[in-house]
Amino acid sequence: MRKFLDSDFLLQSDPAKVLYHEYAEKMPIVDYHCHISPMEIALDKRYETITEAWLGGDHYKWRLLRAHGYPEEQVTGAINSDPLGLFKRYAAVLPRAVGNPLYHWTYLEMKRYFGIEEILNEDSAERIYAELNSKLKGMSVRSIIKSSGVKLLCTTDDPADTLEWHDMIAADESFDVKVLPAFRPDKAMNLEKPEFPSYIEKLEKASGTSIQSFSGLVGALRRRIDFFASRGCRAADHGIDFGLYEESSEDELDLILKKALEGSAPDSLEAEKYRTALFRALAACYKSYGWVMQIHFGALRNINTRLLPITGPDSGFDGMNGNGRVEKLSKFLDSLDQAGNLPRTILYSLNPSESQPLVSIAGCFNADAGCPGKVQIGSAWWFSDTKDGMEAQLADFANGTLIGNFNGMLTDSRSFLSYTRHEYFRRILCNYIGQMVENGECHADFTSLGSIIQDICCYNAIRYFGFKL
Amino acid sequence: MRKFLDSDFLLQSDPAKVLYHEYAEKMPIVDYHCHISPMEIALDKRYETITEAWLGGDHYKWRLLRAHGYPEEQVTGAINSDPLGLFKRYAAVLPRAVGNPLYHWTYLEMKRYFGIEEILNEDSAERIYAELNSKLKGMSVRSIIKSSGVKLLCTTDDPADTLEWHDMIAADESFDVKVLPAFRPDKAMNLEKPEFPSYIEKLEKASGTSIQSFSGLVGALRRRIDFFASRGCRAADHGIDFGLYEESSEDELDLILKKALEGSAPDSLEAEKYRTALFRALAACYKSYGWVMQIHFGALRNINTRLLPITGPDSGFDGMNGNGRVEKLSKFLDSLDQAGNLPRTILYSLNPSESQPLVSIAGCFNADAGCPGKVQIGSAWWFSDTKDGMEAQLADFANGTLIGNFNGMLTDSRSFLSYTRHEYFRRILCNYIGQMVENGECHADFTSLGSIIQDICCYNAIRYFGFKL
Amino acid sequence: MRKFLDSDFLLQSDPAKVLYHEYAEKMPIVDYHCHISPMEIALDKRYETITEAWLGGDHYKWRLLRAHGYPEEQVTGAINSDPLGLFKRYAAVLPRAVGNPLYHWTYLEMKRYFGIEEILNEDSAERIYAELNSKLKGMSVRSIIKSSGVKLLCTTDDPADTLEWHDMIAADESFDVKVLPAFRPDKAMNLEKPEFPSYIEKLEKASGTSIQSFSGLVGALRRRIDFFASRGCRAADHGIDFGLYEESSEDELDLILKKALEGSAPDSLEAEKYRTALFRALAACYKSYGWVMQIHFGALRNINTRLLPITGPDSGFDGMNGNGRVEKLSKFLDSLDQAGNLPRTILYSLNPSESQPLVSIAGCFNADAGCPGKVQIGSAWWFSDTKDGMEAQLADFANGTLIGNFNGMLTDSRSFLSYTRHEYFRRILCNYIGQMVENGECHADFTSLGSIIQDICCYNAIRYFGFKL
Repeated sequence: MRKFLDSDFLLQSDPAKVLYHEYAEKMPIVDYHCHISPMEIALDKRYETITEAWLGGDHYKWRLLRAHGYPEEQVTGAINSDPLGLFKRYAAVLPRAVGNPLYHWTYLEMKRYFGIEEILNEDSAERIYAELNSKLKGMSVRSIIKSSGVKLLCTTDDPADTLEWHDMIAADESFDVKVLPAFRPDKAMNLEKPEFPSYIEKLEKASGTSIQSFSGLVGALRRRIDFFASRGCRAADHGIDFGLYEESSEDELDLILKKALEGSAPDSLEAEKYRTALFRALAACYKSYGWVMQIHFGALRNINTRLLPITGPDSGFDGMNGNGRVEKLSKFLDSLDQAGNLPRTILYSLNPSESQPLVSIAGCFNADAGCPGKVQIGSAWWFSDTKDGMEAQLADFANGTLIGNFNGMLTDSRSFLSYTRHEYFRRILCNYIGQMVENGECHADFTSLGSIIQDICCYNAIRYFGFKL
Repeated sequence: MRKFLDSDFLLQSDPAKVLYHEYAEKMPIVDYHCHISPMEIALDKRYETITEAWLGGDHYKWRLLRAHGYPEEQVTGAINSDPLGLFKRYAAVLPRAVGNPLYHWTYLEMKRYFGIEEILNEDSAERIYAELNSKLKGMSVRSIIKSSGVKLLCTTDDPADTLEWHDMIAADESFDVKVLPAFRPDKAMNLEKPEFPSYIEKLEKASGTSIQSFSGLVGALRRRIDFFASRGCRAADHGIDFGLYEESSEDELDLILKKALEGSAPDSLEAEKYRTALFRALAACYKSYGWVMQIHFGALRNINTRLLPITGPDSGFDGMNGNGRVEKLSKFLDSLDQAGNLPRTILYSLNPSESQPLVSIAGCFNADAGCPGKVQIGSAWWFSDTKDGMEAQLADFANGTLIGNFNGMLTDSRSFLSYTRHEYFRRILCNYIGQMVENGECHADFTSLGSIIQDICCYNAIRYFGFKL
Repeated sequence: MRKFLDSDFLLQSDPAKVLYHEYAEKMPIVDYHCHISPMEIALDKRYETITEAWLGGDHYKWRLLRAHGYPEEQVTGAINSDPLGLFKRYAAVLPRAVGNPLYHWTYLEMKRYFGIEEILNEDSAERIYAELNSKLKGMSVRSIIKSSGVKLLCTTDDPADTLEWHDMIAADESFDVKVLPAFRPDKAMNLEKPEFPSYIEKLEKASGTSIQSFSGLVGALRRRIDFFASRGCRAADHGIDFGLYEESSEDELDLILKKALEGSAPDSLEAEKYRTALFRALAACYKSYGWVMQIHFGALRNINTRLLPITGPDSGFDGMNGNGRVEKLSKFLDSLDQAGNLPRTILYSLNPSESQPLVSIAGCFNADAGCPGKVQIGSAWWFSDTKDGMEAQLADFANGTLIGNFNGMLTDSRSFLSYTRHEYFRRILCNYIGQMVENGECHADFTSLGSIIQDICCYNAIRYFGFKL
């Protein structure tokens, strides 16, 4: 029986320990996709309480609290009004969360950032709360990022964003972590939303153009891409929760856009035509700028419409969709490849039963790639971002193509305290490969395996995204 | 090499053994969903032969016999005419079923109920048959239930049922196991079946109302819900093999019902409208009575139409469907939640690739729940009711939400000898959690983990269903 | 830490070792489905270089090279023009393929056929290339087949094929391995392809009939089935990448066929009607000839249309489709069973998330089978033909029905050096069953388990296909 969270946590074999401690542990972190706020980095935000830091914006934790039956006013409703009470509720729930990634994430963060190894439960909650808060006083967003070994991170930004916070961070020589924007034009894709017309106005202002047609929209976004590129952006990101792919004519697209701008909802076929065309045009831009295109695939958003007006989107009321759309995605990628417009692409599959189909489809678009792993699946995402999910993703990747070319981990997080997830991933990765060595399922060539592991830890991503470090 | 079925069967680590023997083993059984006959309990049925007890109604075993090529007259056709021959065929097949749950179930039942540990195969069949039959003479349905440690069980009953057998059991003070009905209105949902009109007549009689409209139908079912509630019913159950969800008007529903009652088959859209509306009305009733709503999701029924007229339904000719309908289910649940009509709900997924989507969708309906684990996935079901299936279900549950709130095992069985499946589940559960302790993947806090395990063994279900014990 | 590829490779427990070395290892190979060329057997082809043998036709290896970014002219474009360069590229990629089946396949082939155990990488590539080529000089296709322990193999052949190479092999008494044709009428099914009309002409010639109607087409194919049967054929094979099942009338079918022969593309409903009817008619023939019907289910073909004109089909640009069509397949099988026309059938599922549904559906068509395992899932296929995929397939099979009746492994290969995949499978099989013994999850009855393993190694397939050896 091994002690929880000892130095060999998750490393079940001697080769795994060697691979982790000698190759992975010290690697810098390149967090190429996350949702933290550039403003908070620019202003070097400090947290009043661990409740703010842990429970202020983390819908994973909110879901656990809801799953234990707490009313919403004691969950999101209590963040500011009752931080101790909310923390105590989380502490009461944690022991029942054994096997859940939050159990590991919470204890990893407690140990690595605060040096606390005690059991967190109802009894210890108040004491640990005080200790966490006291230690938190000495920390700021930047100090956390620095002490975590982060060398570069990419935020997620709207095309209409001014990137002023990014400018401020870049101008500040006292902070040597690279903070780059990433281009996420979901609002331009979601033409059926009521806020679409006002969003297009915002985009007109940001781009300094008037959007009267589909080609005008593409032009405006192109200008923003150029602007983002001037700020060092290397990646775009799309949440694909809808059907692709449908062909259309320029005239049709103009009509669909006009309709949407006049506030009447397009039907689902029109929406699919619009999105296919817009996404295709954007992909061609990404390709011409040498950007990476990320596709987050398979979410079912805003399932609970009762709570949506209260908590807003991204509050823990999304789910994993079933499957059935990989064939259309493959057609979309093919249409890009046919036109010479397919950028380097990462496919994040939310539903793990679509992971293997996506690996196989990705493998059809690597001919003449000019770089390793041009189209590849991403790290286990969201509901799959668990130990089991990561192990399954690694196996799907290795079984289906070259694991040595995997771009590795990202936090995808809204929290500044979640860089320990890179450690978590690295341990799982080293355990996965170490177990093969232990079982005699590959040559015990530590130099070669260690080099693969370091590539996956950060070197692959640096090369793939073209980061300058 | 461990001996088969020793006291540490399936317990691969020391912590697993502690958790099982000290916490799980002695817990009472609350079998909240099964298909045994209340009449047989009321009459305290005895079995003539092990063939009757094992092979009389068990479509799992029939499937194995068919898979070995035996003609149907030597399978279901031989239950009464050739009990020894049928038993011998089953014995001949069993060694080839290594890895199948029936292998484990059979040997567990032989050991626990009959004290036999010998290998059952063609050679030993006749001898073991005699020994089983001789020991079976001393047993009755009630003695089996009692000796298994069952404190409460819920049968599955049609709304038109008189529940007279339940009344008889309840009135009999010599039998202190609670036997409650559960409400399963599938026949009222399946309006396209030829027997639908005559079923509605039966329902009219049972409810003492005339059913002339959709609202009349709902009213009749409401009366039956009230009647079931007066008999202690705490749960309803729906087999959802069809598409949900489609909106409709009251007028449409009246027309669809009229059409169906006149014997003309509704089209699939009409059927979906009718089912959505009826299910929604019933769910609101369940909610108001504080019942649990169970949804069995994803079966493909009566696949083999050649055998259907010979063996009838539920004879082993059903399958697991593909997937693709979780999005509609999420809309249905949302419509209930919007109206304040969402009862506590258990979602049983037949297709394991829908398990993770369902966990994530369930997690969107726990806000303001007022109880732990309000909407949750059920125990691994039917084709997934295997060691591998259970382990996957536990991992899906734990990864996606609070494993500590899981309602745990049920037999779902037609057989009185299957309570050992609770033991089987508990060993797998303790092994799952024990392995985390062994690997240093959680705090070795046996008090807390043991309490979670006892909750899953029975306390969660008692609280969740509101059973009075 | 065990040495890679030692004699107990993949055998993690003592019972696994016993089962493999005492029961499985020496069993003959019956390779009932592959894609090797009968011409090359007839002419006893020899290879100039290992590049030709390994990389001449193996789209698995091409995919790895593409995944590393090599341009197509350095992959398929270099087979003849730069064999050493191509081999070196493959050697450079191999270390990054740890966890991929090609890693294991490559080293197994190096060790078993060439006695080389060295690490293959960029450094050793040139030396190993020379050694492999030198040893290859002493080998021919027939010597490889013989030394691999193959007793029988089935190729994959078009209905219009003359089978002249099969005749030549059969007539040659110096070669005592049975080489049988298998009937794969995909070209007759794919009526929407531009080459369909010319294919039908070819079929007219081969069958000596004129095809003017749907029944004429069926008649022509029936003649070819009769011809194949006269050459010892025992199996047909269908790639089902499309939707089934739609009913139609004879008149409709005639019109659809006419349309296709005139070169106008049928719509998808017409294609589905045609295929359902043709497949049904063929299945009835297979049944009457006692053939086995194989269905390869769930591929997404020719995803990359840019490369299709350059590399042709079957060049590594296919993928695994999502799922959603098992319900229709079950209806198709039911329609055959209803008519008494369901042959023994093997369902190969490409998408592993369809494996469990298919096991359950297969189990609905075994009543009155007259043979063990009449309808069953096949060995893990293509993208699932990995250690993980095989283990999952074995578990799906065992959990869902009688593992003892599994028909076991086939290479499905275009390469003469891939018979080691049978060894690979057998080790995984023995490890799977041995682990149950080790864990005390079944009786340690080695005689019974060993006999099951030998059945799966070859005896089941011999009986199932009706091979005369």
